[in-house]
Amino acid sequence: MPMWVITCPPDAYSAEDKAAFASRITDLYQRFGLPRFYVTVFFQEVAKENFMIGGEATDDFVRIWIDHIARRTPPDRARRVMELVNETLQPFVADRGFRWEVHVDDTPFEMWSIQGFFPPPAGSDHEKRWAAENKASAYELTEA
Amino acid sequence: MPMWVITCPPDAYSAEDKAAFASRITDLYQRFGLPRFYVTVFFQEVAKENFMIGGEATDDFVRIWIDHIARRTPPDRARRVMELVNETLQPFVADRGFRWEVHVDDTPFEMWSIQGFFPPPAGSDHEKRWAAENKASAYELTEA
Amino acid sequence: MPMWVITCPPDAYSAEDKAAFASRITDLYQRFGLPRFYVTVFFQEVAKENFMIGGEATDDFVRIWIDHIARRTPPDRARRVMELVNETLQPFVADRGFRWEVHVDDTPFEMWSIQGFFPPPAGSDHEKRWAAENKASAYELTEA
Repeated sequence: MPMWVITCPPDAYSAEDKAAFASRITDLYQRFGLPRFYVTVFFQEVAKENFMIGGEATDDFVRIWIDHIARRTPPDRARRVMELVNETLQPFVADRGFRWEVHVDDTPFEMWSIQGFFPPPAGSDHEKRWAAENKASAYELTEA
Repeated sequence: MPMWVITCPPDAYSAEDKAAFASRITDLYQRFGLPRFYVTVFFQEVAKENFMIGGEATDDFVRIWIDHIARRTPPDRARRVMELVNETLQPFVADRGFRWEVHVDDTPFEMWSIQGFFPPPAGSDHEKRWAAENKASAYELTEA
Repeated sequence: MPMWVITCPPDAYSAEDKAAFASRITDLYQRFGLPRFYVTVFFQEVAKENFMIGGEATDDFVRIWIDHIARRTPPDRARRVMELVNETLQPFVADRGFRWEVHVDDTPFEMWSIQGFFPPPAGSDHEKRWAAENKASAYELTEA
């Protein structure tokens, strides 16, 4: 988590573009304290005949679907989150002449696991350690 | 929104079929006042060895996953919505001899953006204008 | 439902591996009384340049996304469910040297349909018949 699925026309982005795009997305979450390895970005290149917007086969559109898991966004923060998402996208959509649409789903924190571990609570010292080491590892939850 | 992901066997549908199928789906939402460009339809052609139903590799099945965003379905309307979805699917699944399954997820309206804009409220005059122009554009929300 | 989408490197699994993996997943749900045909498993093979973990192109990672529909997991059961999921994954991820991450989303039971039918209530005699016959068929709901 988060998992970004970026569906785009074939050859919309070079391998270097994709690496830069994914890195920029990962930076966004790191600024909020998330370990970098939490961030998955998939690129799906879809041919025009399989990519329909408004019932029309399309080759100038980037459709981004995001599952958020580690953090749940309260409704009054949603607009700010989406502004940050759009700022992150900007150089790879608007600036390239693509149309785009993005939506985020929130999925349950309890139903998420990495390397067989349950990720530590948001903002906890364990999470900070996972972020610093950039990998999942065993930890013990102590009572508050 | 909505986003339909239609996973089917390779060569289940011709390019003309896909265009007709996507157009039929888009018509359904237009009848309820949604702008046509809100509707995304992806076709994913999946080879038999990657398409497992009940643990068996399968080449006669169409699996449809839908994310609804612009409208949330109250539980007492769900059955009617699913009937409309099945009527829409009928000529491309049952009538072609395919088995099929469909499920819909509701994702948060606040976490959705098109061309950097936040879509206007359901049924608003701004939404009607977006529908008439079939594209996203700036608007100002006035207080009620 | 459930629908598992297993995103893996190309050639991570042979056709035989995939069949065994999907069968093992299907067995898990059958133990809880679900009809085998409820279980969809898709394998998506994604090239390294399209598969980014922590901003890095990756070829040693398996990312599993699950939509649960037929059963909703209460929060106090989530940990046990995820342990069962991880046990199910074990021979195909950890034992093969892959890193992995899995998350589950719950989607609304009412917004789900198979072959045009609404699946019977969890644990009902109708569900037991669907499980025994391993296919969807008409049934009548009687009042309690």
